[in-house]
Amino acid sequence: MSAMNQFAIETPAPEFEVAAWLNVRQPLSLAALRGKVVLVYAFQMLCPACVTHGLPQAKKVAASFSRNEVEVIGLHTVFEHHAAMGQVALEAFLHEYQIGFPVAIDSASGTGPVPKTMAAYGMRGTPTLLLFDRAGRLRQHHFGMLEDLQLGAQIAALLQPTPAGSDCLDGRCRIAPHA
Amino acid sequence: MSAMNQFAIETPAPEFEVAAWLNVRQPLSLAALRGKVVLVYAFQMLCPACVTHGLPQAKKVAASFSRNEVEVIGLHTVFEHHAAMGQVALEAFLHEYQIGFPVAIDSASGTGPVPKTMAAYGMRGTPTLLLFDRAGRLRQHHFGMLEDLQLGAQIAALLQPTPAGSDCLDGRCRIAPHA
Amino acid sequence: MSAMNQFAIETPAPEFEVAAWLNVRQPLSLAALRGKVVLVYAFQMLCPACVTHGLPQAKKVAASFSRNEVEVIGLHTVFEHHAAMGQVALEAFLHEYQIGFPVAIDSASGTGPVPKTMAAYGMRGTPTLLLFDRAGRLRQHHFGMLEDLQLGAQIAALLQPTPAGSDCLDGRCRIAPHA
Amino acid sequence: MSAMNQFAIETPAPEFEVAAWLNVRQPLSLAALRGKVVLVYAFQMLCPACVTHGLPQAKKVAASFSRNEVEVIGLHTVFEHHAAMGQVALEAFLHEYQIGFPVAIDSASGTGPVPKTMAAYGMRGTPTLLLFDRAGRLRQHHFGMLEDLQLGAQIAALLQPTPAGSDCLDGRCRIAPHA
Repeated sequence: MSAMNQFAIETPAPEFEVAAWLNVRQPLSLAALRGKVVLVYAFQMLCPACVTHGLPQAKKVAASFSRNEVEVIGLHTVFEHHAAMGQVALEAFLHEYQIGFPVAIDSASGTGPVPKTMAAYGMRGTPTLLLFDRAGRLRQHHFGMLEDLQLGAQIAALLQPTPAGSDCLDGRCRIAPHA
Repeated sequence: MSAMNQFAIETPAPEFEVAAWLNVRQPLSLAALRGKVVLVYAFQMLCPACVTHGLPQAKKVAASFSRNEVEVIGLHTVFEHHAAMGQVALEAFLHEYQIGFPVAIDSASGTGPVPKTMAAYGMRGTPTLLLFDRAGRLRQHHFGMLEDLQLGAQIAALLQPTPAGSDCLDGRCRIAPHA
Repeated sequence: MSAMNQFAIETPAPEFEVAAWLNVRQPLSLAALRGKVVLVYAFQMLCPACVTHGLPQAKKVAASFSRNEVEVIGLHTVFEHHAAMGQVALEAFLHEYQIGFPVAIDSASGTGPVPKTMAAYGMRGTPTLLLFDRAGRLRQHHFGMLEDLQLGAQIAALLQPTPAGSDCLDGRCRIAPHA
Repeated sequence: MSAMNQFAIETPAPEFEVAAWLNVRQPLSLAALRGKVVLVYAFQMLCPACVTHGLPQAKKVAASFSRNEVEVIGLHTVFEHHAAMGQVALEAFLHEYQIGFPVAIDSASGTGPVPKTMAAYGMRGTPTLLLFDRAGRLRQHHFGMLEDLQLGAQIAALLQPTPAGSDCLDGRCRIAPHA
């Protein structure tokens, strides 16, 4: 499969640093989501490609897979126009665009425009898509748009039960003990 | 031609009541635009149909017709989520969506959520499209989406020089002295 | 208005040379259509841009304007793969794509691959769009795709009653006696 | 995952009955493709949904997955307008639409309009999509359009190495010896 940004999966995935959670009863964490495949969509509510492509795709993933298997999370990573994209504005946006999946507001850095989780993952902009396997390891890190066909394939690859001792994605397998 | 909202053009068109103009050197007015066809797109920056359909269509009109002939104006008619759609947020939005035509911020009412120009024209929501002829008379008032083919035809109809003493649109002509 | 192929309208428009008419009770002709604006869409049933763009646009025009005002005609100008696009194949195509407006099959040349009407108008390929005014004069000749907004404007411009002695399109007027 | 047509995979998949192969050096067969996932797109060249949705999706699959892993095959299952969709017409169609993957022409029945492979698989119309696993077993049989996201997921699920003795798709696993 072409055009994927493979990420070094040895690195432990940084936990989210979140100022507030929306559309949830209680805060989520990567740790608590072990056992599910997790799709994180980093976006800004005033980023055109997020609005016209990324978030509709995220909604489609949430509608296509069982939430017992795949968790879709929006991560609001504001790195520009901060005054325009505060929590009140985001809540209005989620309401108008009928986005019902959990959304985390990335914590402000205190020292610069890029918020903490965005910095920890080295994201280059929005939209950015992160895909974690059932063991909580980061398996895809993609900046920009991704075809539905490819995203569906990547998610499904992570959903499969794998033979003990192997760890495969995109046709490459490595021998590794499961977490 | 089908599906048009014909408006009583006898009524003088109310002038805009504007809190601030963006993307202009100096404020505009219907009075000062006499001689041009004027397309006004009432929108809210967090209204999905405005973002995905209305504003792209307005940009297309601005790109397709000479500005000497047709003036395209956005009118930000916020009637909900006021805290999320203030001037700072709108400026960020216009920047990100690369909207370069003049945008007027409709004046708040002081007594209710619907701003003044929106109320004066009896608009039912966003997007709403107003089309004025060269004499400053309101010739179309359309709530919702309009096909490009129909909008192009309506604008062109108003651009034509008409025989003295007649006044025609959509195949209907009325005898009337020009303003 | 931008991106138009203005055509020398002094030239009398050649009459269609037609092997067969489909979707009609009796043959049509430019001469008999005087008084209407006529949109002719030259296409080939196996031309992808005709199928995905041109013919859907032609259907939209037929649905948007009154047939008393605007006549939409398909012209099947086969200049390649002749064996694949005979009359039986075309009839199946029109049925499957639910094309209900009149379609003329351009007459084969006898000496080369390009059929007669296509040659008479100097068409460079398909889709090609011809637009005739109420007096039967060719006013637009466009090879390729045209935006709905522009096509709607061009048709509407030709629909307007014009002041005696003038003849205007796209902001240019010429003094000419009407036919 | 929603909206899938699960098929009884116990049934041995009927081999194709093919009048002619296009875009190949030598004929293909399900038997010879063991080891690959095989996507078969049954279509008719004059079926609008095939042309606008199905075949573009098939091209996308062929471009997204390695041909060592996934074989995409078009199956021309003409059950109406036979005179319009013969081999010469199909060859012109494949050329114009730039379809480069192998295409099989389903064998005519001799007794009715539905060709042999189409009948053997009990297809209800076009487009129909068949998906075979590496062992040559039919795993999906879908009439109509399928979302890219779901098709990508289904293909990827069949690409995974599975634990010995299990056989899983769409979250359901059955115990079965591999072929």
